[in-house]
Amino acid sequence: MAAFHVPVYFDYLATFSWALSGAIVALRKRCDIVGVFVLALLTSVGGSILRDGVFLQRTPPVLTDPVYLPLITAASLLVALLHQRIADLPVVDKLVSTIDAIGTPAFAVVGMQLALGAGIPLPGVVLVGAVSGVGGGVLRDVIVREVPFILQPGQFFALVVLFASLVFLTLTLALRVDTVLAAWITIGVFFIARMLTIRYNWQTRPLLRDG
Amino acid sequence: MAAFHVPVYFDYLATFSWALSGAIVALRKRCDIVGVFVLALLTSVGGSILRDGVFLQRTPPVLTDPVYLPLITAASLLVALLHQRIADLPVVDKLVSTIDAIGTPAFAVVGMQLALGAGIPLPGVVLVGAVSGVGGGVLRDVIVREVPFILQPGQFFALVVLFASLVFLTLTLALRVDTVLAAWITIGVFFIARMLTIRYNWQTRPLLRDG
Amino acid sequence: MAAFHVPVYFDYLATFSWALSGAIVALRKRCDIVGVFVLALLTSVGGSILRDGVFLQRTPPVLTDPVYLPLITAASLLVALLHQRIADLPVVDKLVSTIDAIGTPAFAVVGMQLALGAGIPLPGVVLVGAVSGVGGGVLRDVIVREVPFILQPGQFFALVVLFASLVFLTLTLALRVDTVLAAWITIGVFFIARMLTIRYNWQTRPLLRDG
Repeated sequence: MAAFHVPVYFDYLATFSWALSGAIVALRKRCDIVGVFVLALLTSVGGSILRDGVFLQRTPPVLTDPVYLPLITAASLLVALLHQRIADLPVVDKLVSTIDAIGTPAFAVVGMQLALGAGIPLPGVVLVGAVSGVGGGVLRDVIVREVPFILQPGQFFALVVLFASLVFLTLTLALRVDTVLAAWITIGVFFIARMLTIRYNWQTRPLLRDG
Repeated sequence: MAAFHVPVYFDYLATFSWALSGAIVALRKRCDIVGVFVLALLTSVGGSILRDGVFLQRTPPVLTDPVYLPLITAASLLVALLHQRIADLPVVDKLVSTIDAIGTPAFAVVGMQLALGAGIPLPGVVLVGAVSGVGGGVLRDVIVREVPFILQPGQFFALVVLFASLVFLTLTLALRVDTVLAAWITIGVFFIARMLTIRYNWQTRPLLRDG
Repeated sequence: MAAFHVPVYFDYLATFSWALSGAIVALRKRCDIVGVFVLALLTSVGGSILRDGVFLQRTPPVLTDPVYLPLITAASLLVALLHQRIADLPVVDKLVSTIDAIGTPAFAVVGMQLALGAGIPLPGVVLVGAVSGVGGGVLRDVIVREVPFILQPGQFFALVVLFASLVFLTLTLALRVDTVLAAWITIGVFFIARMLTIRYNWQTRPLLRDG
């Protein structure tokens, strides 16, 4: 099991990108600097807090690793400094989607690795991966009182997370691909699938139609 | 303490019934298949995730027992397959209330058994039982942005959970009734009390009246 | 580390005051007696449940210490008994703000003490203190479907919590002041800062202005 290890910079990368995305949402919700930081924090480490605090009974790394809080503070300050620019640029929405498309699979891969290490059976590993990947976004939506994106019909997202999780588990467990390589491939697969979904606007549908 | 054990099929039964009920709510909220599964999952194992992950510091069984996720997937697919039928039948509301009236006390009994096993004092045991019984429903309401049923005046529910919890603790701890028998009696008591509440529409009232 | 100990009555005091404040909010939201108790419970021990159940992997004291549940029940019954009076008095809003100004730093101090005892590094200690201090209020807002006060521009609150946390850590860790004395000084500093904020209505502003 010693070899099965996703480097911590995957987690730093994902945390910074989700913190930016949470801070931008806070900006648009007319929050003050505290709200920007709180939403950056919840969006970026909410998934790992659920993963560790609720599912795996570990102390969440935001408490034990001194890198996370400065990273989230930096993302919050960056967004606060550039706030006029960010509010004006229509390119920002595209940027947020793009960084989410990197951050989500990175979190999912780290979550699956920890769940495997804790001896959780495979269906549970996928669940922990999915919660790690989308948990922060769901908490963000709940706290700003929006229907969580995961419950709404729209562009494929959760199914892409599920697909990427299966790719990662197949690569590492069945094909014995090196974990770091498998993690990068998974992030690549998710990123491409997600960009295609956005480009062609592939949508899921509610099971019940109106009318 | 070895004899004090509620069989796991109580938990499977309650999980399946609450998963159906969560999936039906998702259907009516115009969710897609992902939303139906997410709401079935949260409604059915939300209580046990709070119980284990937050209160008792155990790994939630949805991760460790490979039965739960297939059970919840099956309930989601069943509701998805029958969706037109379910949307049309007025009998479904009654069915959901009925299965909730079985699932709630089953979860409460399992929760109390685990809390007793962890050496929690009696008031805490009742709290863990109540959270196990109503937690999934509260999380479901929060995530679909409704005021949680437990906060709203309406038909007696939480007080019936409290009453059933006291029945279970009296039977097992004071009267030394066999745990499995006590669990079935508790479920029966809750079911009858709840059906009477629905039949005669017994209501609680807000402390403050308007006007 | 044995000497580093905040007496438990700080926690009882804060719990009772937040339970009153939660119960009063429930009263105004037209809840029944169950809703009043649930909101009193969530507001008063929500912060410590997050602190212990999610962050520090301890069993929350509301389960293990038999004082909390009777304390919260007493606060709920008190508010229920005096409900007509409470609804009429404009002085109640001021009273709620005042008790929150005592309860918040008391919870923050207890949280920081536990986090230090668990070997968490200083930025994490401040985070645990802040979550302990404001967590219950945030959960209360989420469950009654209001935008959490912490996200809204308005009177300084979170920044005062942060300032008080730094005061406590400076006193205990750098200046080696006795913990009980430091806790009282911290509560006093927070109380005065908060009362000044309310008196002069010091406000934070959204980063983005409308128009």
